[in-house]
Amino acid sequence: MLTVNQAAELLRSFDNVLILTHVRPDGDTIGSAAGLCAGLRSLLGKTAYLLPNPELTESTAPYALPYHAPDGFTPERVVSVDIASLSLLPENARAYAGRIDLAIDHHPSFEGFGKEKCVRPEAAACGEIVFDILESLGCTAIPAEAALPLYVAISTDTGCFAYNNTTASTHAAAAALMGTGIDVRGVNKVFFRTKTRKRLQLEAAMMDGCEFHDKGRTALLSVPLSLMERVGASAYDAEDLSAFGPQIEGVDCAVTLRELRPDVWKLSLRTGPRVNATKVCALFGGGGHAAAAGCTIEGTLSQIKERILSGIAQIVPDFSSN
Amino acid sequence: MLTVNQAAELLRSFDNVLILTHVRPDGDTIGSAAGLCAGLRSLLGKTAYLLPNPELTESTAPYALPYHAPDGFTPERVVSVDIASLSLLPENARAYAGRIDLAIDHHPSFEGFGKEKCVRPEAAACGEIVFDILESLGCTAIPAEAALPLYVAISTDTGCFAYNNTTASTHAAAAALMGTGIDVRGVNKVFFRTKTRKRLQLEAAMMDGCEFHDKGRTALLSVPLSLMERVGASAYDAEDLSAFGPQIEGVDCAVTLRELRPDVWKLSLRTGPRVNATKVCALFGGGGHAAAAGCTIEGTLSQIKERILSGIAQIVPDFSSN
Repeated sequence: MLTVNQAAELLRSFDNVLILTHVRPDGDTIGSAAGLCAGLRSLLGKTAYLLPNPELTESTAPYALPYHAPDGFTPERVVSVDIASLSLLPENARAYAGRIDLAIDHHPSFEGFGKEKCVRPEAAACGEIVFDILESLGCTAIPAEAALPLYVAISTDTGCFAYNNTTASTHAAAAALMGTGIDVRGVNKVFFRTKTRKRLQLEAAMMDGCEFHDKGRTALLSVPLSLMERVGASAYDAEDLSAFGPQIEGVDCAVTLRELRPDVWKLSLRTGPRVNATKVCALFGGGGHAAAAGCTIEGTLSQIKERILSGIAQIVPDFSSN
Repeated sequence: MLTVNQAAELLRSFDNVLILTHVRPDGDTIGSAAGLCAGLRSLLGKTAYLLPNPELTESTAPYALPYHAPDGFTPERVVSVDIASLSLLPENARAYAGRIDLAIDHHPSFEGFGKEKCVRPEAAACGEIVFDILESLGCTAIPAEAALPLYVAISTDTGCFAYNNTTASTHAAAAALMGTGIDVRGVNKVFFRTKTRKRLQLEAAMMDGCEFHDKGRTALLSVPLSLMERVGASAYDAEDLSAFGPQIEGVDCAVTLRELRPDVWKLSLRTGPRVNATKVCALFGGGGHAAAAGCTIEGTLSQIKERILSGIAQIVPDFSSN
């Protein structure tokens, strides 16, 4: 495992670098890649590109597109950012799976691929590690064209500094990045203060249909296929809907049911310390962490609601059937 | 006007300090007051208290209560924090209006009261100024009991670092505060990841009834008295509902209509650069800023919607009547 300084020195020896991002790319993988690419070019004068990610969204594309590798670019070196497992390589990146020279990541679940690795699970975002690497590289300050995507990486992976992964170092990195003079107002507006109309319609319908049990501590929220159709919502609009329930005051056991196919439901469970989410989901053949777990259940909505409530009651000693 | 260092030196000469907060107290006024109080005690060994604010909420009370002045406390010195105008003093603070020794504030609209003033409109939060003052005072690091309320002050006034007032200095302050070892997870959960059930019901109903005009750029949202009654919502649940509309993708002219009394509506207008909110509200006898303005209009909901749309059409050259 390389330290940040060692990773910086290794990168100094590289040239003609191709940077890989993960499937369903988020702000962290794209921001880390673009920030690293800009830093390698500007601080070290290297040739560096991103492998085009086929799943860019409207909000991430502007950061990746300026660095897309041209057709026919033949890399000497390959670096992966924010990729915990080779199974998360986009299809066009699979050819590089066996020749990753440096893997930079912050996932505790990092699987250990790559000739060299710089993996720091204590970093809130992969962008925080790339920031440290560029700081270590730079005799000069971090260039603004690297600073903006790194701000995107760090802010998105911390829910704009509100998630529990945020540390003093996260804020120190944000202070240094903003100190380069970048304008982050557009980033904050797009990523943290904008929702699609359809997304808000989904949330409104989830709230209208929300059932409370267990003295208001357990909430059952559902997104049937009929709702997705009525709203005309896309997968993008419905992303991460399981984050909606946990924000309801007093709720420490938020069940989100999303209908994948007729009568086949994906259950996402988000819980506080009172409820072990993994134990509940294990009853239905699923798994996860103590505070976030999932499984797939088949049946009508009313059937599975009943099964889930009795599952929770079985696991949680002080569950109250209202 | 005092610099931060001068304000710190002045506080060094004070003792038996009473700290005043503003009506409808928010995280910034309470956090600034508690942070200053804790700092004066711990860094300088002073006797210092907060004047009890009669309007504390469940989320701000824990920060203020430990520092409430006991009955019969007779202050030698009085300091106001985050108070832009003497008209914002709570009733029990009015007796001190003429004897404020130091006013610490960050509002551009600060009215100029107090024997001495330390006012910095470039600070995102008053808590950022108090942080700088404590840094200037301290030969030692900022004590943790001051750091947590100051984090509350800074994070709440910046919407958890997402509003446009956030600067590199704001993040640097957050980094230093978190570096004291405080646990901000509870703060972030309570202030930024929790909404009351009734609040979410109001938002859902606003979304259900939302009308889009002007190629989707103008949204009309309404909160009639009947909705408030149906949900059983309090003023607390309905606070700052005008922030809901501007988050809808594509909307740069968000009109929120809240019924104050039967057929008397408070209009809040939040706009992007295309629409001058003040000019629109001036048509109805109101005012404000270019991006945020308000007024009061009388009539039935459908009448006033029509009047507002034609008002916007009058002011905005490229308004499109669908």
